[in-house]
Amino acid sequence: MTVTHASGFRAAGLTVGLKDSGRPDLSLVVNDGPSDAVAAVYTSNRCKANPVLWSQQASADGRARAVVLNSGGANCYTGAFGFETSRLTAERTGELLETTPEDVLICSTGLIGVGGQDFRDRIVDGLPALVEAAHAGVDDGRAAAEAIMTTDTVAKTIERTAAAGAGEYRLGGMAKGAGMLAPGLATMLVILTTDADLPASVLDRALRHATAHSFDRLDTDGCMSTNDTVVLMGSGASGVTPDEESFTALLTDACLDLMRQLHVDAEGAHHDIAITTSGAASVADAVTVSRSVARSNLFKAAIFGEDPNWGRVVAQVGTTDAEFDPARIDVTINGVRVCTDSTPDADPDSVVFTREVSVDIDLKSGPHTGTVWTSDLTHDYVEENSAYST
Amino acid sequence: MTVTHASGFRAAGLTVGLKDSGRPDLSLVVNDGPSDAVAAVYTSNRCKANPVLWSQQASADGRARAVVLNSGGANCYTGAFGFETSRLTAERTGELLETTPEDVLICSTGLIGVGGQDFRDRIVDGLPALVEAAHAGVDDGRAAAEAIMTTDTVAKTIERTAAAGAGEYRLGGMAKGAGMLAPGLATMLVILTTDADLPASVLDRALRHATAHSFDRLDTDGCMSTNDTVVLMGSGASGVTPDEESFTALLTDACLDLMRQLHVDAEGAHHDIAITTSGAASVADAVTVSRSVARSNLFKAAIFGEDPNWGRVVAQVGTTDAEFDPARIDVTINGVRVCTDSTPDADPDSVVFTREVSVDIDLKSGPHTGTVWTSDLTHDYVEENSAYST
Repeated sequence: MTVTHASGFRAAGLTVGLKDSGRPDLSLVVNDGPSDAVAAVYTSNRCKANPVLWSQQASADGRARAVVLNSGGANCYTGAFGFETSRLTAERTGELLETTPEDVLICSTGLIGVGGQDFRDRIVDGLPALVEAAHAGVDDGRAAAEAIMTTDTVAKTIERTAAAGAGEYRLGGMAKGAGMLAPGLATMLVILTTDADLPASVLDRALRHATAHSFDRLDTDGCMSTNDTVVLMGSGASGVTPDEESFTALLTDACLDLMRQLHVDAEGAHHDIAITTSGAASVADAVTVSRSVARSNLFKAAIFGEDPNWGRVVAQVGTTDAEFDPARIDVTINGVRVCTDSTPDADPDSVVFTREVSVDIDLKSGPHTGTVWTSDLTHDYVEENSAYST
Repeated sequence: MTVTHASGFRAAGLTVGLKDSGRPDLSLVVNDGPSDAVAAVYTSNRCKANPVLWSQQASADGRARAVVLNSGGANCYTGAFGFETSRLTAERTGELLETTPEDVLICSTGLIGVGGQDFRDRIVDGLPALVEAAHAGVDDGRAAAEAIMTTDTVAKTIERTAAAGAGEYRLGGMAKGAGMLAPGLATMLVILTTDADLPASVLDRALRHATAHSFDRLDTDGCMSTNDTVVLMGSGASGVTPDEESFTALLTDACLDLMRQLHVDAEGAHHDIAITTSGAASVADAVTVSRSVARSNLFKAAIFGEDPNWGRVVAQVGTTDAEFDPARIDVTINGVRVCTDSTPDADPDSVVFTREVSVDIDLKSGPHTGTVWTSDLTHDYVEENSAYST
């Protein structure tokens, strides 16, 4: 069901020839309303891709009827021609859906620098069939989710149903992304839909909270994408208006679910690592410390080798400006306290490794906690990313 | 000759059994004066190793007669016992050299967490033979340079002789370090000697300038060590006092030479990459932009695969707070302008790769330039760092 789990939404996905592999590459999600509320967050990279530049201005009014997404080319660093491609795509989709171009958001993913005349023609020429497929309602949302995959090995989707008063409302979602997952989002596209009846301002607050506590804390390789986009569309079709707090909680839960799906499918990863810092003077300190460890190639290579090298953890803590006493740091790996007060404790050989690895750091400087998720640094990561465009 | 190229210095290196390999592991450099001026810079990591904590306080008065260095154990995160080991080493060396413990600096390199009773005993018991070897003058500085190697494949040394007025003075140096080479130095130990007659205050200014323009701009894997130390000792034995500017220039040149030797020997590197940002509004902007690219695993993996993936360069520029127009960035790889005004230019296939790779970024925002050196991300890097301690 993915994005169509929420009532008021249709979706479609098909192949227009953007990928050499011949796999699906063009995707559409349409909000039939009655509401057309939308909220979105975009990459904090200052060198943004053209679809992001387009969508930022198109979503600024809190209204959108559709999102067109493509894989097989990021349309990034393609200059004015590339921006015009995004605009033309929105214009043509708007005509087909009988709405304005500014009600259509655009997302692209794939290689940077790809976005020439062929790319434009194949997308624009494919739009009538795409809109027709969405109208026909033949897609349960699966095709749309598959057409946005790049190096993903599986489609990532979520569905949630929640009671509110006498009624119920739904959330649906799809995501893609397997590399460049880093702060302020990732090469990650996420479309979330809900039939809850909420104004754009509430959707916006809820979305910012949810992404800050989920996607923003997934940092697989420290690299920040140029195309990251998370869109939340509200159709209001359920007629139900949940209170903001419970809606935010459900949305955050859904985003954490998608984040975990992205995490376990990260390019070349052999271990899924959760780094939790506790005893921090603030949540910001906890996240900073966890993220500094998540960024250490030496630490990530050690985990690949199943070496519980806690020294590389403490060394990373030392690179931050968080509040702590350098002589009082504890490190626990997979439940074994290998370092107490910044000195060796339990025998590292007693640490048992599985696919999931937990690293717990105690700063003993306050009551706050924060987790950042990352992947190990593997031969497969090097291989995938040295051969991606060739 | 290494550190003994400058007159007034003796050195020695020998094996005391700290390394399983049985290779040399204990090293000594003695300054016979007449001056005992010293300057030193240490890692900016807040979780510093015990020898750094010792040497920081011992060198604070600008005076030192000797440095004892060991490989085969970093004596880091070994608690009060480890600090006492550094102090005992200085005390025993001071007795043998008939000076105070505070005139003896200590440097250690190797695995974090290693620094127990055996480690202490072997070092302290080895000191008489070490001092005797230095007194005998049998070492031309080579043994000292070899005894500080860890994963280094070659010893790194420099020698310089310069005229000043009617006389001449000399600089000698040795360095180790092959991984964790990152900002504010690296797992890097550098001992520099000079027979120029300069007070500690001048040595300090010259050393800070030289390291800021050399070692601080080598960032092979973004990881900051806990043990980094650069020491400059001045014996004054030449009786020559060069002007500060020319001494600083010679010292900077010597440090750049050592930095290049560290760079080409970086763990697992297949390509030595120089990232130069020009057209920057400030030197700090230029270095920030170059360093952000040097830290990108995606970029570094692409260079390993000899893929001139300029999109990953522009994307990294976008993560910085430097002054630039996102639509006006040029990228040149090995002399081929593959990106002009943030759009594709020359065919990337025309880039020819060799061991040395130059990446030039033009921000078109000012007159300043800065280079950061890094290595590619290779299978060998992953292998060496996942198997290091096992």
